[in-house]
Amino acid sequence: MALIVQKFGGSSVADADKIRNVARIITETYRKGHSVVAVLSAQGDTTDDLIEKAREINPKASKREMDMLLSTGEQISISLCVMAIERMGYQAISLTGWQAGMLTDSAYSAARIKRIRTERIQKELDKKKIVLVAGFQGINKYDDVTTLGRGGSDTSAVALAAALHADLCQIYTDVDGVYTADPRTVRGARKLDEITYDEMLELASLGAQVLHNRSVEMAKRYNVNLEVLSSFSGNPGTQVKEVVKHMEKTHVSGVAKDKNVARIALVGLEDRPGIAFKIFSLLAKENINVDIILQSIGRDGSKDISFTVARDDGQRAREVMEENREVIGCRSVELNDQIAKISIVGAGMAHNAGVACKMFEALYSAGININMISTSEIKVSVLVDERDADRAVQAVHDRFFDEFGNA
Amino acid sequence: MALIVQKFGGSSVADADKIRNVARIITETYRKGHSVVAVLSAQGDTTDDLIEKAREINPKASKREMDMLLSTGEQISISLCVMAIERMGYQAISLTGWQAGMLTDSAYSAARIKRIRTERIQKELDKKKIVLVAGFQGINKYDDVTTLGRGGSDTSAVALAAALHADLCQIYTDVDGVYTADPRTVRGARKLDEITYDEMLELASLGAQVLHNRSVEMAKRYNVNLEVLSSFSGNPGTQVKEVVKHMEKTHVSGVAKDKNVARIALVGLEDRPGIAFKIFSLLAKENINVDIILQSIGRDGSKDISFTVARDDGQRAREVMEENREVIGCRSVELNDQIAKISIVGAGMAHNAGVACKMFEALYSAGININMISTSEIKVSVLVDERDADRAVQAVHDRFFDEFGNA
Repeated sequence: MALIVQKFGGSSVADADKIRNVARIITETYRKGHSVVAVLSAQGDTTDDLIEKAREINPKASKREMDMLLSTGEQISISLCVMAIERMGYQAISLTGWQAGMLTDSAYSAARIKRIRTERIQKELDKKKIVLVAGFQGINKYDDVTTLGRGGSDTSAVALAAALHADLCQIYTDVDGVYTADPRTVRGARKLDEITYDEMLELASLGAQVLHNRSVEMAKRYNVNLEVLSSFSGNPGTQVKEVVKHMEKTHVSGVAKDKNVARIALVGLEDRPGIAFKIFSLLAKENINVDIILQSIGRDGSKDISFTVARDDGQRAREVMEENREVIGCRSVELNDQIAKISIVGAGMAHNAGVACKMFEALYSAGININMISTSEIKVSVLVDERDADRAVQAVHDRFFDEFGNA
Repeated sequence: MALIVQKFGGSSVADADKIRNVARIITETYRKGHSVVAVLSAQGDTTDDLIEKAREINPKASKREMDMLLSTGEQISISLCVMAIERMGYQAISLTGWQAGMLTDSAYSAARIKRIRTERIQKELDKKKIVLVAGFQGINKYDDVTTLGRGGSDTSAVALAAALHADLCQIYTDVDGVYTADPRTVRGARKLDEITYDEMLELASLGAQVLHNRSVEMAKRYNVNLEVLSSFSGNPGTQVKEVVKHMEKTHVSGVAKDKNVARIALVGLEDRPGIAFKIFSLLAKENINVDIILQSIGRDGSKDISFTVARDDGQRAREVMEENREVIGCRSVELNDQIAKISIVGAGMAHNAGVACKMFEALYSAGININMISTSEIKVSVLVDERDADRAVQAVHDRFFDEFGNA
């Protein structure tokens, strides 16, 4: 008998029929003799509807009150789902964030879990009850309700799995698992049986929005066995773990696309020490997160620095740079927000120079220009024009995942 | 500077505009230098919508989960209203039942407040914040969410006023105050400036649904000064207190109508001891509440016992009596659920036999037959045919509240 934490997202509990489906999955697991703790998100568009209600009243509502408001969504889901489970003849109980002992810091709307007091959950499990916990929420030391930010229910589930020493944490979603590329847009994309935490982290941060990054980081830190699977198909999903049985050849797990990118180029910087520090401390002060940073030598002894930020931050990043152009000492600031980041991710990559080469070759064959390149231990990313993005993903995917299997 | 508890019902917070209106009333009170604790109900039909959602999934959902579900409605109201207050430039904070320290027993869906831990509210008031508390809800000793039952927000407000030793508890609603009869159906009905707790209790239990009875009982017990007033008109309302300045003549406060009545008559009972006990213990076992009880001597030495119950309980009460007819020893059981109870309420009534007489005379003049009569210290009730009910109220009201003022 195992202890299994299951998480169901908003689309999995969107209406009465879907809630009944979730209740069926939960009770089937329970019937096999397992203890089950299920974490639920708010139904479908509930959170967006509540945000809209708040905006109508006060577009600058305090984050404390927003959290108070939004946390009702998950509370509705869990109580309704317990009712569905009760109807099937099983004993279940719903617990809000505070009842489940989810203690967080006080960063309203983006709180971090500090500790979980598991006594109450444990007590209910001991009574053989199925326990449903409201995802996305907790309380801080003042007993005020906090939320973990969008996608926070994944984090709630993994944190609970860690705190309860669960044998498995299943993340139910509307896709069958983690794919080699987005199956909705890339021909031939296929599901992976397993993937490492690190690969999953790169894929998540690169725009393959299957799992919330914080949840994968937490799973890696506490060595929680994750499984991503569909609440609709019943098919086996993708296992996310520390080490996977790789084939001997270089393993590329997937191709990801991220359009939420803008590139800033600082052209003609004087070549003196401390410039990079100055640039990125200015951005940090404005709470602008920087992704890729590249520095190259310019023609006349000057140098260029380029970096990418989230697209929404593009204009502001450019303005900050313009305002400080004299301090930084650069000739011009250029912004390009019509770009996309295409990446391949795979554990063995660093040891095989041929992988990056193969990617560039695929793009060249498709006539796609590369704007910027960045590599790490387990990924290669390139920036391309946004209008080439989908073709680029398809070309790279075709090259690595042909009909004979992995490269 | 006073401490004022204000309660706003569901129709007062039904949409964004109405929430802004409530925020305006609250901040105007605060601007006058008062400390304000406001208790809010769920918006408009929210509670009914949630009940419908639950019913779709499980018509026999456990009460614990229903309370978990329904308590979200008030949480949404208070957070939205705080946002509206914030926008007006004031500091406010919303507190759920558990955060506000509303400790109840464990009777889910009909919980009773046992104690209020006021520390948190007091702390926020000390910081000069306006405090908004979710009505209708609390927690029991297991830290589970409970609700106080329909109309429970009135009770929340009065209980808070008592625990905080508030100077005044204002119940805002969609009518201007307490009227001599229902102003929507009775010509010439007029608003009372003041009324005693006891009169209010009789009026509430007699079908004038202005205030929840439990809240009036609690106000009487803890001597909380109540005021019933409209959140829309801005007019002064009705004061509810221990003693009011009565005019010297007998005072009739109002005429009430209650259609939620069914009458059971047990005809031809043998005249032996213990019969009444047997009858009403049978009903108590079935959780059927009895209102009026009348016993009369029959013609042949036998006696008749009649009693009224809520209309929904009528059929079941009749069945229970039929099943036990031999034990009880009566000739026949008759049910009449096409009746209504018309009552006049007034503090001085017991000392003036003429009051009841005047009522009977008014009904006689209108050609309305009286089915059953019951009197107490401060009220006279009669049962009439349901189809005569509205005419009966008008006739009695005309008789007591003519154009020259009170009787």
